[in-house]
This record gives sequence, structure tokens and C-alpha cells, in this order.
Amino acid sequence: MSHFESLDPLFHPRSIALAGITTANPEHWTRVFLDALTEIGFERPIYLVNPKGGKIQGHKVYRSLRDIPGTVDYVISTVPAQASPGLVEECDTKGVRAIHFCTAGFSETGEEEGARLEAQLVEASRRKGIRIIGPNCMGIYCPQSRLSFGVGFPQESGHVAFVSQSGGNAGGLVRQAAWRGVRFSKVISYGNACDLNESDFLEYLADDPDTKIIGLYIEGVKDGARFHRALERAAKEKVVVLLKGGITHGGTRAAAGHTGSLAGDEVIWDALCRQFGIIRVYSLEEMADILQTLLFLPIPEGRNVALIGAGGGNSVLIADEFEKKGLIVPQLPQEIIHRIREFSPAAGNILRNPIDYSQTIMETGKLGELVSIVSGWESIDFLIGFLDLSGFASPQPSTSGALSRWADGMFEMIPASSKPIAMVPQLSVVPEDANELMIIAQAFVSSQVPTYMSFAGAANSINLLLTYKESYAGRLKALRV
Amino acid sequence: MSHFESLDPLFHPRSIALAGITTANPEHWTRVFLDALTEIGFERPIYLVNPKGGKIQGHKVYRSLRDIPGTVDYVISTVPAQASPGLVEECDTKGVRAIHFCTAGFSETGEEEGARLEAQLVEASRRKGIRIIGPNCMGIYCPQSRLSFGVGFPQESGHVAFVSQSGGNAGGLVRQAAWRGVRFSKVISYGNACDLNESDFLEYLADDPDTKIIGLYIEGVKDGARFHRALERAAKEKVVVLLKGGITHGGTRAAAGHTGSLAGDEVIWDALCRQFGIIRVYSLEEMADILQTLLFLPIPEGRNVALIGAGGGNSVLIADEFEKKGLIVPQLPQEIIHRIREFSPAAGNILRNPIDYSQTIMETGKLGELVSIVSGWESIDFLIGFLDLSGFASPQPSTSGALSRWADGMFEMIPASSKPIAMVPQLSVVPEDANELMIIAQAFVSSQVPTYMSFAGAANSINLLLTYKESYAGRLKALRV
Repeated sequence: MSHFESLDPLFHPRSIALAGITTANPEHWTRVFLDALTEIGFERPIYLVNPKGGKIQGHKVYRSLRDIPGTVDYVISTVPAQASPGLVEECDTKGVRAIHFCTAGFSETGEEEGARLEAQLVEASRRKGIRIIGPNCMGIYCPQSRLSFGVGFPQESGHVAFVSQSGGNAGGLVRQAAWRGVRFSKVISYGNACDLNESDFLEYLADDPDTKIIGLYIEGVKDGARFHRALERAAKEKVVVLLKGGITHGGTRAAAGHTGSLAGDEVIWDALCRQFGIIRVYSLEEMADILQTLLFLPIPEGRNVALIGAGGGNSVLIADEFEKKGLIVPQLPQEIIHRIREFSPAAGNILRNPIDYSQTIMETGKLGELVSIVSGWESIDFLIGFLDLSGFASPQPSTSGALSRWADGMFEMIPASSKPIAMVPQLSVVPEDANELMIIAQAFVSSQVPTYMSFAGAANSINLLLTYKESYAGRLKALRV
Repeated sequence: MSHFESLDPLFHPRSIALAGITTANPEHWTRVFLDALTEIGFERPIYLVNPKGGKIQGHKVYRSLRDIPGTVDYVISTVPAQASPGLVEECDTKGVRAIHFCTAGFSETGEEEGARLEAQLVEASRRKGIRIIGPNCMGIYCPQSRLSFGVGFPQESGHVAFVSQSGGNAGGLVRQAAWRGVRFSKVISYGNACDLNESDFLEYLADDPDTKIIGLYIEGVKDGARFHRALERAAKEKVVVLLKGGITHGGTRAAAGHTGSLAGDEVIWDALCRQFGIIRVYSLEEMADILQTLLFLPIPEGRNVALIGAGGGNSVLIADEFEKKGLIVPQLPQEIIHRIREFSPAAGNILRNPIDYSQTIMETGKLGELVSIVSGWESIDFLIGFLDLSGFASPQPSTSGALSRWADGMFEMIPASSKPIAMVPQLSVVPEDANELMIIAQAFVSSQVPTYMSFAGAANSINLLLTYKESYAGRLKALRV
């Protein structure tokens, strides 16, 4: 049996037991798995287990795994650390293939007792032939098989896998990326990795036909040589994006406390990424940005961009951000300026590149006409529409209707462009604006237009895509099939 | 008469004429000055001028400046560029000291006609002895004299001046910084700077007793040698923060198109900042961050920080961000861990530094107790409370009440800390969370606690403060008097 075949059943359980779910408090954290599985519609048996027995939402709570009629494929455990080794023994009688131990309190505490309990888990599971995910993690989200650990996660499947040592970062990435249109094949939060670890999941995903992009959040690895091989192979089969946690002394110590990981040398990680062709990011937001870019931005031919928005000061700052990242903002030629001037005043507009179209942006049709001319200019490879509320003099652009007219103008740009186009409604840190900008951003996302929340984020992500394309164009081609 | 004395009257006009205000459409951009002056309560005469005459909100609209009874101190002009030189001639008859030309369409267009009109403005104003602010800018906000160009700007005065070539960036900074508690002495948007330029305002502000911090957004300077002297002097008298727009080829060209500026060499700007002790930032958000830091963060003795929040993955990422910026996240000693363990479980908490206090953060009193112990630890100089919604499994932490209980816990930290403390409720880019986080952030700001919207922003700004303090501790002392 191949590695893929041996791990695949974990993602498609025929029945699940939730061991340790609390009966008393519906808001208790142990309830999240029932809530998530119910919401996403897991269609096979879910058994609830708690020594106290009772009922939850009309469903019987078994006092022990042994009391469950029939077999149990997969156990999600929220029992206390002390009771965990005993749970492995119990599972043996029910034909359990894998247990996901959500609970913390093991080796990551740095205390002797936790390390001892984790060693007991490993010993018992090896003896019984049961695989373990965790402990100290959120487990698996696989929309195809209706397996989930987060309320509000998308119902639909996609082609992005995310392997995250941290449960919070796994959920955080799903939520950030999901509203931007990213959908997932498998998301795995694997915590202390006492049995199944990052290499197991990487090897599995390299062979997974449902996965085209693999995102990684890794604090440290269990077996360097094996991970090295797994990463090299995965990077050949899929587009791999890495967020490495614990790249400083403080971060490394935090990683040790979080998942008991040895974080390793930053220089080595950097070299690995260069050697294998792995896209490196430094925050969850950057991870969400690049996933969206890989999925939705048609690949520009080159690095030349036309930036179109409103506001002179914004124009200067966005041009700086793009050129700092190695993108090029070429000068608008006189011939193009003349054509634009035929239907646009010079005063209040700045007909250079960036194009500050303040005076005309809200006039119906004008922005579309501008974009159809500019996108035909042979010196540029892609276009950016930008919006920054700094340019508005009134305190709530939303109430005056100016904001929605501006958004309408930006929507005109999309069909008018003959080249790849993305939008940057820069997220304001002014409270009354943040919500309005998010609504506009969501409308762009719904039209499958790549949408970034900051000038710097857009420039960074598009640079990452183009840098990757310059060496690995072939790997990118497979993404949009 | 000193330079200060000659410019100060511009900030305290005894009467204002709004030349070119539209009578037809109350939402027209030329109305913003009337709206702003009305809102902030300018108490002296405001005369409205438009060749068509008529009335606005019951106030007479004069057909010409000459028709106004009595003298006019200060004119805010929104007349078209072509009519601007004529306006200077008219002003002469009314004793006008200065005209702020808001209108664009001058040298920044790069067209001959615009350059010619701007030269005419300069010639006429020199001949008549009238000073010009602009053209192509928003002019002056001076809450003390009830002068304003933005609806929603704070009524109260403060000690921060901001000199910005861009009107959008001036307004954007005021709005971003204002909600974080920053208040201003004078904000000046000066555009093309055909007469009064950045050096004039810098020289003025260096002597201004109401100003302690000077923020600058500069695209290019008119007279390098004079600016050099003005900057050196200002940096000795005040804390100066610079955002330079146009630091790349593209940004430089954008600056040329925006305010007709020659942006100059990045290397020179960097050297100037080092030489004179100027804090350099690269975005408006960073500018708002550092202004808030300078005003509200008690100056830490050194670079050692304790990071306290919830979420293991977050902890790793925030530790990385702080150490990348040269701050130090020292290891929590056993002695402190033992004291915390007396009232906190090990499972679900991570008692290292960062401290992930997930399991206990919502229990009343516990977070205060934790902070009083940690802030007494001699190896740290300041504390950060952090919050990132990635750690929540449910989709809307706000509805479950978890978010507000968490915020309550963070509020307990403030009085419990014996060392400087700041909060980082990291702004989520997930739509349903952004608004909630802003509400929490506002509550912290209302308590005058420095509040940052990202891990990276907090680390950057505190590093800037400490770097500045390492060379210019004396200049900082004057800030909090």
C-alpha cells in the first residue's frame, strides 16, 4: 500500500466518535467539533462520548467508546491529557484507524508529566496500530468528506491544501482566504506531531489529485532528512508556499513552547526555498494574498504595471510600493495621454502613471474608456485599480454616496481591460471606513477579481507570482486547468 | 519681523472669503471648506464669493471679492486655474494677506498652459505682497483658530504639526491619527508650493510654541540648501518624523505629476535623516503609529518585552515580528513560571514568553494577577497585550461574547502593569471581524493606551521610538511635559 493509500482513509472516515465532549455547556470549546460537523453536514454516524452520559441536542451520549454499537473509524478526542493514553486502549476494541487528540498538556508544556503522557500515547498507538494526529491541534478540515473543525468554513471544496502546526493559524488562514474566494482540498492542523507529522502530510498531498497548491505553516520538523525529501518532491508536483514560524530566537522559543518544536536555522530554510522553488511568505495575510493570486490573477507577461485610481498622494505611495518590490511603473507616453485628454480634463486628474483620475472617475463610462486605452498600451503587462479613503475630504464617504460611485467606476475597469487586472481597496484603519471598504472588497472578490487590502500586500504578492513564474512557469500552468 | 511672526497671522485669520464656492450642488467639492469651517465653528466672518451670486444656507453670495464690505484677511480659492491670476488682482483691493489656491490645473499637469498660469500667480502675488499656499492643495487645519479643511477633524488642539505636500495624505493622516488620540497644532497641505514651501513651514513650526512633534510628507523640495538648514534646525527643536514620497523611479515620476516636484535621491534623504536625527517612516499608517507612540507610550528603559495574549501560532508570529525589529523577547524564568502556575493550568496555556494565556484569559482577575507578576520581572522593560481572532474557532467571536470577555481581560492588564504597556488587537482582514476589532481598539485608545493594528506595526513603531531614544533621549523628554 502506498503512503497515499494508507493515509487517505483518515480524510474519509465512515464514522466519528467525539470523545470528551461536554454535556453541560453548549459554548464549551469541546463542542466546536460537533458544531462544525453538523454545520458542514457530515452524513455518516457521529457518536458522542462522555463518562457522565446524558444527551446533547437529542443525541445519546455514550459513557464509553466500548458502548457504541458497531465500529468507529475516527476519534476526535477532547479528553484531558491524563486520560488520553487510556483512550487509545479503549479505541482498540472498536477498530479505530486514527485518533485526533485536540487536547493540550503534553510535551509542549515543557513539563515532565506532559512529555511522559505523550510518550505513553505514542507507545500505545504504535502497539495498537492506530495513527495519531496531534496532540494539541485542531485536526482535519476536508469539505469533500464533510469533515471540519471550524464553524463558518466553506462547504465547497477547492484545490488548496494547508498544513499547519498551529490550529489557530489553520483556522485563521481558512477564514482569511475563504472570503477571498480560496477553497480547500484538505486543511490539517497537526500540533505536536507525536505520530503523523509534516512529512507524512506533505508526502500524502504531493500525490493527492485534489490538491494543486500546498500552503505550509511549520514551526519545526521532526526528521530533517525526510522532510527535505518530502519538500523537494512536493515542490515538483504542486505549487508550495511556506510560512515558517520561529525564525528569530524569541519566535523559536515560542515555537518550542507551542508545539515542542526545534525551529532550526533561518539560513537553512531560506536555502531550501530557493533550491526547491518554494514561495516564501511571512504572515498569514501574505499567505492568503498569494493563494488568491495563484488562483485568480491571470499571469502577467512581465513586470510593467499601470496603476489607476484617485488621489495624488496615494499615487506616489502606491508607485513607491510597487517599484520597491521590483515591479515597474513605466511613464505614460504622450500618444496615450493625448487619447485620454480627448475625454478627460487635465485639472484634477494626473495623466501620468499612476493615473490619478479623481475628476472623472465617477462619470459613467469614462473609467472603462480609460482602461480600454491603457490596457492596449504595449508597454504594460497588467493593471491595478486602487482606492484609498485618505483622498476623501468628508468623514464618511459611504453616506455621501461617493464611495459607492467610486466602486461602480472600478467595476467598469474589469471588463474594459484586455490585460490582467487586480483591485486594491486599501483597508483603512479608520473605524468608520473599515467596514465599507470590506463590503467593496467583497464585491470585487465575488467577481473573481484578485483583491488586496494594502498597496504593499498587492505589490508583494504579484512580485512573488512573477518571480516564481520566471523559474517555474510550467508548474503554474497546471493551476488553472 | 521674524519668520515666525510673519507667517503666524496666516494661521489666525480675522476673516475668510471662499472664492469659487458653488451655489448649485451642496455635495460639490468646493463646498468642503464651508462645511469644515462651519463644523469646527470658525467664529469670525466667512464671505462666500461666486460670480453668479445667490445664497447658500441663507448666507449672501457676493459676485466679487470687491463687493464684500470691510477687509478680507484670508482667501480660500476654488476658482478654476484660468481665473486664478485675476483673483490675485481682486484681492489686492481688500487687504488680503494670503490666498490658499485649492484648485489644480497648474504646473503639476506637465502642460505649458498650467505652468504659465502658475508663473502668473507667482508674479501677481509677489507684486501685490500677498502670500500663496498652493496651488493644488487643501490648505490649513488649525483647531486653535477654528480653521479647517476636513469635515470630522477633531475640535481640540494638540501638539503635533503635519506638513504635507499632498492634501489627500494630509486628511488621511489626520483621520487615521485622530481616532488614536493624536491632536494637532497645525496641519498644512501645500501642494505645488509656488510661493510658500516646505522650508517656510518647517522654519515656522520650529519656532511654534504649540508644536512639539513635526510630521512631514514631502515629495520634493524647492531649494535644497535652505531645506537642509530648516530641517536641521527643526530636528533640534522638535521631534521630526518624515514620510518621503517618491523614493523609486515610478514614485518620483508620480510626484512630478502630482505636485511638480523633483523628488531627489533616496540615498540623500536617508543620510539627512541619520545626520539630523529624524524618524523615518514609509506609509501613513506608520506615521500614525509613531505619532501615537511618541505621545502615549511611556518610554521603556530598554528593548526587552513580555508578550501576553492567546493563541500558540499567534505567539510564534508576534515573537518573530518583535525580534525581527531588534526587540528582545527573553525567556520566562522558572521562578516566574512557578508563581504563575499557582493559579493557572499548564494545559492550554503556554507559560513561556510570549505567554499564551488562552485557558485563563477570560477568568476575571487572572490576567491582572499574571501581569502584576510579569511586569515585576526585572528582565523586561515593557509589555504587549495581543489579540488575534485567528485563534477563535467560531466564525463570529463577537456573537458568542468571547470577544468582549477577552477585551475585558485585556483591560485588566492596564492598571496591573508596573511597566509601559501597549495593546495590539491585530486588525483582521476578515469582514465580519474588522468592525469588532476596531470597537475594541477604540476602547483601548479612549483609555490612552497605545494601540496598534498589527504585530508588525507595533514592533516597528516601538523600535523607532527606542532607536530615537538611544541617541536623542533629551528631545523626547520635552514631549510629555
